[in-house]
Amino acid sequence: MTNDLVNRLFKGEPRAVARAISKVEDASEDASELMKAVFPRTGNALVIGITGSPGAGKSSLVDKLALHYKEKGERIGIVAVDPSSPFSGGAILGDRIRMQTLGLDKNVFIRSMATRGNLGGLARTTVDAVSILDAAGFDKVIVETVGVGQDEVEIVKTADVTVVVLVPGMGDDIQAIKAGIMEIGDVFVINKADREGVIRTEKELEALLSLAHRQDLWNPPIVKTVATESKGIEDLSEAIEAYSKFVKEGGRSAERRVAIARWRLLELTRERLLARLLANNGTEKEIERLAEEIAEKKRDPYSAAEELIGRQ
Amino acid sequence: MTNDLVNRLFKGEPRAVARAISKVEDASEDASELMKAVFPRTGNALVIGITGSPGAGKSSLVDKLALHYKEKGERIGIVAVDPSSPFSGGAILGDRIRMQTLGLDKNVFIRSMATRGNLGGLARTTVDAVSILDAAGFDKVIVETVGVGQDEVEIVKTADVTVVVLVPGMGDDIQAIKAGIMEIGDVFVINKADREGVIRTEKELEALLSLAHRQDLWNPPIVKTVATESKGIEDLSEAIEAYSKFVKEGGRSAERRVAIARWRLLELTRERLLARLLANNGTEKEIERLAEEIAEKKRDPYSAAEELIGRQ
Repeated sequence: MTNDLVNRLFKGEPRAVARAISKVEDASEDASELMKAVFPRTGNALVIGITGSPGAGKSSLVDKLALHYKEKGERIGIVAVDPSSPFSGGAILGDRIRMQTLGLDKNVFIRSMATRGNLGGLARTTVDAVSILDAAGFDKVIVETVGVGQDEVEIVKTADVTVVVLVPGMGDDIQAIKAGIMEIGDVFVINKADREGVIRTEKELEALLSLAHRQDLWNPPIVKTVATESKGIEDLSEAIEAYSKFVKEGGRSAERRVAIARWRLLELTRERLLARLLANNGTEKEIERLAEEIAEKKRDPYSAAEELIGRQ
Repeated sequence: MTNDLVNRLFKGEPRAVARAISKVEDASEDASELMKAVFPRTGNALVIGITGSPGAGKSSLVDKLALHYKEKGERIGIVAVDPSSPFSGGAILGDRIRMQTLGLDKNVFIRSMATRGNLGGLARTTVDAVSILDAAGFDKVIVETVGVGQDEVEIVKTADVTVVVLVPGMGDDIQAIKAGIMEIGDVFVINKADREGVIRTEKELEALLSLAHRQDLWNPPIVKTVATESKGIEDLSEAIEAYSKFVKEGGRSAERRVAIARWRLLELTRERLLARLLANNGTEKEIERLAEEIAEKKRDPYSAAEELIGRQ
């Protein structure tokens, strides 16, 4: 069963890819077996993280970039971390609409990642989905997230190249997130560059970048795009390529690779520890009882957690 | 020591409050004892969650709302979940600047919550900080987050009243997050309401709200503000009050309170399980070794996590 799925996955069959991602999302029994088979086949795709505020036009930019790669004969996987999905099934509909825009074929795969209750952390499942697409032979894997949440920043930090998308006329915003973007952006995009204020935004960004001290001495380029009109996409693709080449030549620091591996290991361990506890007979019932007592202020969450762990 | 801290905390001493929050952030030994003492004293403050995209002007809005409450003689605590903090010490400087604007006294307390490595989840520490402010006798506790990350949405869902902040001219944005905001917003704000496009944004929002089916039959009001000019703050305060009254009369569903308690219990349990594992002799060394092996693709994260858990 898993063997068959793995074989079809390695051939790049879209349905096998979709099913494999669902397995890691559901944290199902065989997800672990699956990922053990997948992991050794990873490391060939270029993983591009694209992040920015809502309203920055990330989706359009990602779609146009994917089309650009597709036209060059490459296979592209897109993993969109969709914050609205916890509340609805809207993500799946959204994927279908985007699939139609991009052309529904074997060479473009798109998937939105949703929050699924308390098990199966979003960051872990997203990173696993990227590994699956990588192992399935996609040349480029684009991870699209809003760039402001804790998990979302973690996700984007695991990419090979991180693209931060800004829009003109958000000066306050740049000020607010400057500490963050200085360190995670390898390439900066000013999208909607036909809008007023683009020069000011560029100047501000340049000033901020000049203050940053990157350990790897890379000087992050600023690319101007109008994604809806497909303008600047070639430039963006070249900037991504340039950073990728820079890293390959210099060698991405082993330290960074170990840091990512460490983060991934701890995420998974944390999740597994809770899953093991929950699998114990009667734990679910115990949790319900404790939650009710906390809600009624009959006890505090800390002593309740201790009691729960003590049961093991 | 903790006893003394707890007593000073209950008297509302700002330094005791700050120290208590640091303790829960650091997941220090006595944080658990502290929170056990704090918990029974919670439930008196009105907890207001304010969320919205970067650039929506949340900070200004929060500051003006806090000033409004302060002028009415109330004590206000602000917990700002700051996505830039993982990367720098910028948050502390930001707090100081805001403190000066708000007037540095015993009646206004502001604290940014930062990511602190892999231990001590942001959502858990933020919710603990809210409990601390509540127990310290603050009348209003405002939690300010970007409204798009997974953790950030979880945090805001634990508030008594959730305010979603939008700005004109972000039509695409509303479409993108509609599924989410429909269910978490008790009050909607269109900030920067002196900008073009405010009527269109209002109409779109009204249309979306008319499609929503809230179980509690509350009809979320839309308030227009220009925070930088202190316009509409009184209206916002009234809308918050109205929802708070509505909930008090109808009684917030026990179901919802239990759901929050359950989430909090599981967050804490997950964190404690990992902390217990890490406290074992030699685990840190084992993690370093495994992370290196994963980085070198000598093994996969799944089997590494299993090995780590098996050591217990």
